[in-house]
Amino acid sequence: MKKILTYWTFDLFHIWHLNILKRAKELWDYLIVWVSWDEFNKLKHKSSYSNYEDRAEIVSSIKYVDKVIKEDNWEQKISDIKKYDIDIFVMWDDWKWKFDDLKEYCEVVYLPRTENISSSKIKNDLKG
Amino acid sequence: MKKILTYWTFDLFHIWHLNILKRAKELWDYLIVWVSWDEFNKLKHKSSYSNYEDRAEIVSSIKYVDKVIKEDNWEQKISDIKKYDIDIFVMWDDWKWKFDDLKEYCEVVYLPRTENISSSKIKNDLKG
Repeated sequence: MKKILTYWTFDLFHIWHLNILKRAKELWDYLIVWVSWDEFNKLKHKSSYSNYEDRAEIVSSIKYVDKVIKEDNWEQKISDIKKYDIDIFVMWDDWKWKFDDLKEYCEVVYLPRTENISSSKIKNDLKG
Repeated sequence: MKKILTYWTFDLFHIWHLNILKRAKELWDYLIVWVSWDEFNKLKHKSSYSNYEDRAEIVSSIKYVDKVIKEDNWEQKISDIKKYDIDIFVMWDDWKWKFDDLKEYCEVVYLPRTENISSSKIKNDLKG
């Protein structure tokens, strides 16, 4: 069984979020998703419209997702890859090469993004 | 087996959307969801940020949902209640009493809304 891990803030859940989860689950077997905790987003100077609890609840309800984990510290990528015996770390290709340091611990795969949608684009579009 | 039907535009999928779907599925057995088609929303003088295809795909991916149907005409409520042999029509209590005319065809249940969230509120909040 191939275990996959990906992560995201998943704010304003949209079709690009869904497409990554769906594609990862189609390609492999067991999908673990990290959802960024509000306090950890603050450390990254990021913010979201919805709080962690609501975002995590929505991601947990997607039928392609097997498990949701809270992302709350910088060291977690490597420790969770080991802890959950992850085979493949999945990211989308906006971040190509950026996670290649994880190749020491598992396979790293960059999936194509869905065009014309992102949480930032929704926020900007709605600002008008 | 109790078959339930609800409907919504499901724009900017949020925790209130999810809570209604989850609660309906917890209470009964088989959940059919109508998602409003873009052209039909225009007739109702409504619009959504995301198109029908994306909204329907997200709702279809929620693990509490058994089937998604396109809502595209005014006569559909009664005809689909008959066609799919629906036991319970579910709406949230903002619309209390408004769908009681359907009681001729099935049970009508109004579930409590989730406070402080709606697609309109997200749009207004993001407008700033």
